[in-house]
Amino acid sequence: MPTKVSSSVSALALSLAVALPAVANEGQWLPMQMPQLSDELQQAGIRLPAEQLADLNQYPMNAVVGLGYCTASFVSPKGLVVTNHHCAYRGIQFNSNEEHNYLDDGFLATSLDKEPSAGPQERLYVTDKIEDVTEQVYAGVTDDMDGYQRYHTIQGNRKALLKQCESNDNYRCHVRSFHGGKKYYLLRQLMIRDVRLVYAPPQSVGSYGGDIDNFEYPRHSGDFTFLRAYVAPDGSPAAYSENNVPYQPKSFLKVNASGVKQGDGVLVAGYPGRTSRHKLLSELEFASNWQYPIGASRYQQRIDLIDQYGLEDGVIKIAYAGTKASLANRMKKMNGLLDGFRKTDIPAIKGGNEQAFKAWLNADPARADALAKVDQLEQKLAEQREYKQRAFYFENAQSSALLNTANRLYKLANERQKPDAEREEGYQERDMKMLEGRLNRLTRSFHTRMDRGLWQMDIDAYLAQSHRTPALDTVLASLDLDKAYANTGLNDSGQRLKWMTQPVSAFQTSDDPFIRMAVALYDANEANRKQRQTLAGDITAVRPAMMSALLAWYDSRNQPVYPDANGTLRIGYGVVDGYQAADALYKQPFTRLEGIVEKHTGVEPFNAPQKILDAIKAKRYGSYSVDSIKANTQSWYCGILPCAEANNEGHFGSVPVNFLSSVDTTGGNSGSPILNGDGDLVGLNFDSTYESITKDWYFNPSITRAVHVDFRYVLWMMENVDSADNLLTELTLVK
Amino acid sequence: MPTKVSSSVSALALSLAVALPAVANEGQWLPMQMPQLSDELQQAGIRLPAEQLADLNQYPMNAVVGLGYCTASFVSPKGLVVTNHHCAYRGIQFNSNEEHNYLDDGFLATSLDKEPSAGPQERLYVTDKIEDVTEQVYAGVTDDMDGYQRYHTIQGNRKALLKQCESNDNYRCHVRSFHGGKKYYLLRQLMIRDVRLVYAPPQSVGSYGGDIDNFEYPRHSGDFTFLRAYVAPDGSPAAYSENNVPYQPKSFLKVNASGVKQGDGVLVAGYPGRTSRHKLLSELEFASNWQYPIGASRYQQRIDLIDQYGLEDGVIKIAYAGTKASLANRMKKMNGLLDGFRKTDIPAIKGGNEQAFKAWLNADPARADALAKVDQLEQKLAEQREYKQRAFYFENAQSSALLNTANRLYKLANERQKPDAEREEGYQERDMKMLEGRLNRLTRSFHTRMDRGLWQMDIDAYLAQSHRTPALDTVLASLDLDKAYANTGLNDSGQRLKWMTQPVSAFQTSDDPFIRMAVALYDANEANRKQRQTLAGDITAVRPAMMSALLAWYDSRNQPVYPDANGTLRIGYGVVDGYQAADALYKQPFTRLEGIVEKHTGVEPFNAPQKILDAIKAKRYGSYSVDSIKANTQSWYCGILPCAEANNEGHFGSVPVNFLSSVDTTGGNSGSPILNGDGDLVGLNFDSTYESITKDWYFNPSITRAVHVDFRYVLWMMENVDSADNLLTELTLVK
Repeated sequence: MPTKVSSSVSALALSLAVALPAVANEGQWLPMQMPQLSDELQQAGIRLPAEQLADLNQYPMNAVVGLGYCTASFVSPKGLVVTNHHCAYRGIQFNSNEEHNYLDDGFLATSLDKEPSAGPQERLYVTDKIEDVTEQVYAGVTDDMDGYQRYHTIQGNRKALLKQCESNDNYRCHVRSFHGGKKYYLLRQLMIRDVRLVYAPPQSVGSYGGDIDNFEYPRHSGDFTFLRAYVAPDGSPAAYSENNVPYQPKSFLKVNASGVKQGDGVLVAGYPGRTSRHKLLSELEFASNWQYPIGASRYQQRIDLIDQYGLEDGVIKIAYAGTKASLANRMKKMNGLLDGFRKTDIPAIKGGNEQAFKAWLNADPARADALAKVDQLEQKLAEQREYKQRAFYFENAQSSALLNTANRLYKLANERQKPDAEREEGYQERDMKMLEGRLNRLTRSFHTRMDRGLWQMDIDAYLAQSHRTPALDTVLASLDLDKAYANTGLNDSGQRLKWMTQPVSAFQTSDDPFIRMAVALYDANEANRKQRQTLAGDITAVRPAMMSALLAWYDSRNQPVYPDANGTLRIGYGVVDGYQAADALYKQPFTRLEGIVEKHTGVEPFNAPQKILDAIKAKRYGSYSVDSIKANTQSWYCGILPCAEANNEGHFGSVPVNFLSSVDTTGGNSGSPILNGDGDLVGLNFDSTYESITKDWYFNPSITRAVHVDFRYVLWMMENVDSADNLLTELTLVK
Repeated sequence: MPTKVSSSVSALALSLAVALPAVANEGQWLPMQMPQLSDELQQAGIRLPAEQLADLNQYPMNAVVGLGYCTASFVSPKGLVVTNHHCAYRGIQFNSNEEHNYLDDGFLATSLDKEPSAGPQERLYVTDKIEDVTEQVYAGVTDDMDGYQRYHTIQGNRKALLKQCESNDNYRCHVRSFHGGKKYYLLRQLMIRDVRLVYAPPQSVGSYGGDIDNFEYPRHSGDFTFLRAYVAPDGSPAAYSENNVPYQPKSFLKVNASGVKQGDGVLVAGYPGRTSRHKLLSELEFASNWQYPIGASRYQQRIDLIDQYGLEDGVIKIAYAGTKASLANRMKKMNGLLDGFRKTDIPAIKGGNEQAFKAWLNADPARADALAKVDQLEQKLAEQREYKQRAFYFENAQSSALLNTANRLYKLANERQKPDAEREEGYQERDMKMLEGRLNRLTRSFHTRMDRGLWQMDIDAYLAQSHRTPALDTVLASLDLDKAYANTGLNDSGQRLKWMTQPVSAFQTSDDPFIRMAVALYDANEANRKQRQTLAGDITAVRPAMMSALLAWYDSRNQPVYPDANGTLRIGYGVVDGYQAADALYKQPFTRLEGIVEKHTGVEPFNAPQKILDAIKAKRYGSYSVDSIKANTQSWYCGILPCAEANNEGHFGSVPVNFLSSVDTTGGNSGSPILNGDGDLVGLNFDSTYESITKDWYFNPSITRAVHVDFRYVLWMMENVDSADNLLTELTLVK
């Protein structure tokens, strides 16, 4: 939970900067909250007025754009956009073929006419309106509704708001819940649909270190790519056309070629996805004691089985490489959470905070009602935990990709019997394109033997526990795996797509073994879904009251509070700083070009291009080398170390590659611009350190660091490796 | 090769301390060389007179003792000895049984009468004489001898010298070659045969971090154990007897309870085993390009197979756990060497040095003869490389533990036909006890299926390459593995021991398949041995001349030179210092108690005893906590970093656990006392960092660090965890 000091005590905080360090980095703030933080921003060395930051129609916020799953920013008046290589991956892949492999070799368009489309699916979103729609979302919701009714009334209202907002094709909209349903905001985003590829380094630069370095530091990744937004000649968003012209953004970020030093204040702007900072201790404990250990152990078992089968069959190894990477990534995150909970007793910290909150509620009879709500919430959460444990095994026992597909197709057939507006999310007309894509792609990462082996493991786990569902038991009892896989047509993409338009009756009379299972399991799956939605509705009935009380408590302590991340535009601030990663292990804030050579083995993921190695070995540092990266001695802040020690910088006299800061980020902040105190672009956010993973639940300022590409590395690549003079000229460089 | 500056340029070196840092830490010096280093010692903060260090009969060198494979030191007038836990492991294991498991629980004798024998095999060696025997070793060696004759003449002389020296049972002796045979020294060691166990921490402290932390840092190992030397009442060494009394050493080390700080000078004294610093570039390249990669890859294959079989059969997993650990350790070392050669271009450094040496030889016609010797040596080394590649596959193809045993036993039968003095090393009467032990223990780490699998892999590797030996081809062609393992008696220890005394004829008529193979392979194995010894003899004929020229060259540059390590008593000096382990990664010189808690998972090897965790969590630091471990600002030396940066110390305000220094160590230095500038004990050497592994070939002062147990941690354990008041009183503590 936030430990932010308010502006009213900020003078004290300043005087205690060493004794009470690192209070000022937590927070994924709504832009509109900036003015209440103006003192803290100034102390951190942010010279941009807080009011300016709050305005979505001013520099720099109107230069920040979303990619749907990542963040990016405009960096020229001609719609040039920069984001992470891993965020633009799909667009680079789209343009790669046997003739020219831009993933392997990188790509540079030396003029506008050489910029290819990044693909029909690519979008750039510019948030231009945030509107409070709490009242509309709760319209028709009454106290006597049960959870299921409540859930669907809210969903219905949300869908109606979206439909209205998206009536113009140029906009995409979201209705997002803030503070657990206390507030709902409608976010409107201008949607640019013609996105082109401009400049991408080779994958061996863009994801140097690959999965091995994922969540790690020191890091040496050139995780950047330039795209360009195109619109119709009249300036309106349009699908790709040769007649389209570069988009003229309302503003674009200037690039500061001098970069930052240790101790400098920085800002991050972007679209963080999801955090759980305001959740209750019981929710953390459930995650920590059950969800993460059980989940990580299941992932490990799946990885082991994929490795085992992969050793025996190269086809399986290739087909499941992506699945394995994704499992490994999620497992690393879960293990990072568990490691972090162990190293810092986060349950104790959150528990202490919660006790103080409850004591405050107890202290005044006027707050008795709020206290009762907390108890009601705890009760519903306990029910939800029980549900989740049961559902875990029940749902996993249907984990075969073919059964999953059959379930989804049969659900679609059922939903298609209703008017579009009444269908469940995911089964509306607007979702069909995505579903079609999934059905089409399925076989690329599928192999009968592997699917069967993984599924069998989940079936065994289901059978070994006591939460049984009769319908599933019946299906499993008569399941003949040999026959099921031998006689299904679902491993054929044509058949899968055909089922998308079949009526319920066709499913009910099919003799495809997986379709038959889906039909047999339908009622049980629907009951499971209904229970999930009922619980969600029940919780929505009490959590907002708990959050209101919690916010009142923070307010009584003069603590401004930011809402948990929910994929909406946020601003964070912090300082450039290293950290004590473990006893006797200090990670310095900047990495150097030489570190690329140090890690290079010639084997992926440490296979830097020869042209980069040559430039480094020849010390061709060009214009972007720095002698010293040392902390500004005027800095108000030196992390948890006394300033003298924080000044440990590592060698310099080279070009910085990546750097660390204490800004508060999470998934979705990939590609976010890192701005200096004047709002100039100095880096791109792309990852967090392993020790930071627990920030999903608790922001520990002493060890939480985000990892950024230093923009001097990007400029160095342009100048000394790729001769991207056209782009260097297009950027507005300041010093 | 050494880069040591001589005393004549030391004033310059001092003035350039920052620009030319870290010149003064390399060297495993003979004690007698200390006086020529007196200026450097003073600069490093060593206040003990160099002459005193050179005298084996004075403090502190007469308090340093050998264990045969490790180093230890006397720390009380009553024969109390301290060394590493891993060096005393066998003695602790000897006293562990189902009733009391001292490995798991640790051990403390609260009075002399409670000190059990560490086992009949334990020895303490006090070197009391080093004598130049070069002339005697070369007696009878003539220029016209071939390599084989030369080898055996030298061996004969060595054996005679040993026999003479060891005429008194209280001494063990060695004849060791220095500078590649340029000098031979006879070392006489008083041999104490009654060694008792006094105080050992649990294994979970003594090897905290186990194999995972092996060669790593930050480290948190309590790798110490106290033993006591006992002698007969008349003061002479004797086997264990209840009547024995504690040995009174000539001196013992005082313990400095204030320890050291970053930047302080330290000494190490001990028995380093083997280095290759004076070897030629061609020898390094052969190791780097062939021996290490081929060796590491074979080890990896063996580990993989052990893992695979171990998964299927728990008995195999247990039986081969030790084998696997040893393979993993050696593989990690080889990979560390290869990594290090890649990161720092050591061949280029050594090559440059060698070119300068050859240029010097070329510069004066008087040195033409020496130059010719270098060429001759290179030629012989090339022949030896060819031999080694052939022998690698030939010998590995006999790697079955049973075939190896059969070979050894049949060789013994053959050797036993000669008088004892003429037998090969390893087959003399003095070797029989060790051989018997090996034959007895074999089955503990043996399993037919595993032995067969590993052997098959080596057979396949032999058959896949072109260096073939007809006799081996014949044996392999008719080999029926099923029958061989089914019909051998060598998996029975009684039978193995019985073969020790059988005549050659019994082997020749045996129908044991492995014995038959040994007989069939005997001539080929003897030819292989003869070739090895011939090459060794040939090289002995030229390497000393090369070394003489090399030493003359160093002398011309005023560079004192230490001989490569050879298991004899040496002294090193250096400073307490952290290091830049990689780009942006700084490892601080001291670890703290809190790091133990940080690493603790409750699962071996990170399973610290509860009593230690409790003491740390309660901050029961006792008398040995320090506020700051910061560099002495008067220090002349700050490693490769500017002093201001080197001062980065990590948090303090706790008890130091382990620390780093730049002293030059290698295997055999385990347990070596680390002394402060006054010669007080401040730590125990126990490991080196991963980046240091290449010091076998080249000492890179910027990254080479040895890892020591801080003696304050030992004292803290005594005072705050184990209440070892009797020992605390027995030690002489100074501040």
